[in-house]
Amino acid sequence: MPASVDRIRSDIEAIARFTETPGGADRPTFSPAWREARDYVIDQARRAGCKVRVDAAGNAHARPDSIAWETPVWLSGSHIDSVPRGGNYDGVAGVVAPLEVLRAAEEAGTTAPPVELIIFAEEEGTTFGLGMLGSRAWVGDLSETRLAAVRNAKGENYIEAGAAHDVRPSLLLEDAFNARHYLGLVEVHIEQGPGMWNAEVPLAVVTAIAGRKQYRVKLSGVANHAGSTSMADRKDALAAAAVCILQLEGLANGLADGTVITVGRIECRPNAINVIPACVEFTIDFRSPSNDVLTEGDAQIRQRVAQACDRRGIAHAIEKSEDAPAVQMDADLCAKLSRACAEVAKSTATAVSGALHDAAILAPRLPAAMLFVPSKDGISHNPAEFSRVEDIALAAQVLLKLVTEARP
Amino acid sequence: MPASVDRIRSDIEAIARFTETPGGADRPTFSPAWREARDYVIDQARRAGCKVRVDAAGNAHARPDSIAWETPVWLSGSHIDSVPRGGNYDGVAGVVAPLEVLRAAEEAGTTAPPVELIIFAEEEGTTFGLGMLGSRAWVGDLSETRLAAVRNAKGENYIEAGAAHDVRPSLLLEDAFNARHYLGLVEVHIEQGPGMWNAEVPLAVVTAIAGRKQYRVKLSGVANHAGSTSMADRKDALAAAAVCILQLEGLANGLADGTVITVGRIECRPNAINVIPACVEFTIDFRSPSNDVLTEGDAQIRQRVAQACDRRGIAHAIEKSEDAPAVQMDADLCAKLSRACAEVAKSTATAVSGALHDAAILAPRLPAAMLFVPSKDGISHNPAEFSRVEDIALAAQVLLKLVTEARP
Repeated sequence: MPASVDRIRSDIEAIARFTETPGGADRPTFSPAWREARDYVIDQARRAGCKVRVDAAGNAHARPDSIAWETPVWLSGSHIDSVPRGGNYDGVAGVVAPLEVLRAAEEAGTTAPPVELIIFAEEEGTTFGLGMLGSRAWVGDLSETRLAAVRNAKGENYIEAGAAHDVRPSLLLEDAFNARHYLGLVEVHIEQGPGMWNAEVPLAVVTAIAGRKQYRVKLSGVANHAGSTSMADRKDALAAAAVCILQLEGLANGLADGTVITVGRIECRPNAINVIPACVEFTIDFRSPSNDVLTEGDAQIRQRVAQACDRRGIAHAIEKSEDAPAVQMDADLCAKLSRACAEVAKSTATAVSGALHDAAILAPRLPAAMLFVPSKDGISHNPAEFSRVEDIALAAQVLLKLVTEARP
Repeated sequence: MPASVDRIRSDIEAIARFTETPGGADRPTFSPAWREARDYVIDQARRAGCKVRVDAAGNAHARPDSIAWETPVWLSGSHIDSVPRGGNYDGVAGVVAPLEVLRAAEEAGTTAPPVELIIFAEEEGTTFGLGMLGSRAWVGDLSETRLAAVRNAKGENYIEAGAAHDVRPSLLLEDAFNARHYLGLVEVHIEQGPGMWNAEVPLAVVTAIAGRKQYRVKLSGVANHAGSTSMADRKDALAAAAVCILQLEGLANGLADGTVITVGRIECRPNAINVIPACVEFTIDFRSPSNDVLTEGDAQIRQRVAQACDRRGIAHAIEKSEDAPAVQMDADLCAKLSRACAEVAKSTATAVSGALHDAAILAPRLPAAMLFVPSKDGISHNPAEFSRVEDIALAAQVLLKLVTEARP
């Protein structure tokens, strides 16, 4: 019962064509391109003999027609939403791998495999400003009120924008995640770093996912004329932000191995060539596989931003917008996957995920693990992102082995 | 023949109400608010017995009905366009001062004063990306092709956007500035720095205007995942921009007294919280009253940006978008104004303008000078901008004295 490289390639090419702007994957959650990609996967799953439903939080589920929704099966999936100008593999690899498991079994005419494909909604957090929103809402971490408080670029909240895509806030509670319906979760994903590509490893079992804290910072100086205000008389919010950016870079380098800090978003006002910047808002994304480092870093981030601003007479405010702890994957499930990887892909590699994934949200609630495939040169969140379809097919093959052989 | 403080206050309040967004002056050139402000001034001038015309470049002119457009008179005026969220005095003070001269003479019933009010179009450069556009086009420094190449936020070029406001590119040459029609230029303006306010000087004669070079800089790094890309593997365009910003600040502090460098505008792509910035564009505004310092600074700016980028493996491009030399004001005219200032305002103060003004464009072509009124705490390009109406009335009185007593 082989996973088909060609079918997976065809899926990835088909989904890549659904983009809001050409020259990269641009699929904000609930956009037309996102919906076309979801419809494509649903159609493929139906052709493979699956029934499909969308839960109240907006995540799509597909499992073989013959298996009741209440019967415990393996859950596997990822996301199809993308960052702006992202790549064609992030999330998509983890959706098409279980899709291929369902198709390979259907083609072989065997007993329906105990697996449920899931497409998590809004994993990236770039559409509504909060990552892994779909999985968090499904497990009950986000209330209807919270979903109504996050907004996309058009100003629509998650519930308004999701209404046309089966988000039903009134059913959130009764339709929530139920651990009794699942044996465990395996999320396939691209590594998004250069480690496996450089080590020429085709597949790795993820043992832990780094935690993430995110912040919104606002600096307030004084707008003034760029020509007639001496350097000494300025309160330049952008110059203070520049100090913060470099201080945070230095902090990441000094804290501990595996620590990363990114200022990815910046807005300046009034943002005019001849006006000293009055107000700068920027974001901080801080990750570490150690919860101790996350705690220490949180204090140091606040201290360094405060110091940079105080020295320049710039007012500042920091708001934490995200606080996800580091998460260990299930040891038994990792061991099962490692055995399958060794057999299928001759690989015994393990990895730690610097990126967060929906698996981190599910992990406290059921046995969860991840399989990574290599990213060429570690490039991701970029149109140049590339992973080998052959490696994704190996991941599908491992998944197929797990769900058909590791039945309870 | 006294200039009226009340009428000037009423003008400033009336023009302040014409704004695209409340809470500050927001009058992009050719916007509805800008047009309403221009119509207000034109209406006031007509009530004071003036005829009005708009030249082919979009600058509005008003002079007493009885004086032919070809008769040499004093030119006086400034601008009504504003930076985003600017103040109520920048430019406006220099428009209402000659307006009040025309009204005061009309009220007194004396001979029509030899003065022509001008409202220069697009002085700030924040609407079409090029400062003093109206005066430059009028004196023949900008061709129709150039005017068709600058665009506003809506994507309209100067000619398209100006068509409804009497810009007529086919008449640019025949309707250009003619030095034979003018005795000289006096531009009244707020200081936009704290010098005069702190020294409690009500009025100063400007002896020179600093030169300005402006640049657009583009840094290109590599977008990548903020979680799974180690600090060592990054090519972060925003971190490189932060180094540039601080290097440029240091350069300004080190070059020479009176030198200022501002990074006022920054755009980051993809500008997402969890993506390493791939591309950052920012502007540099560099000014000095010394042309030697301008030349040396130009080389150092290029060198520091190149060094910051090269060290981080970030590609960069610098394009100079503006290059205005430092300009001396006319010594004879300054002497005349100084005598009038001493008599009217008991002030013998002089100043150098760090800001550029339309007077710098006209200065090579006719005797030109400026009068500054103080800016409270030096704040400008900011809704908190404030100047005393009494000081603006003193400037109008000096202007009135000049045009009525210094006839050729």
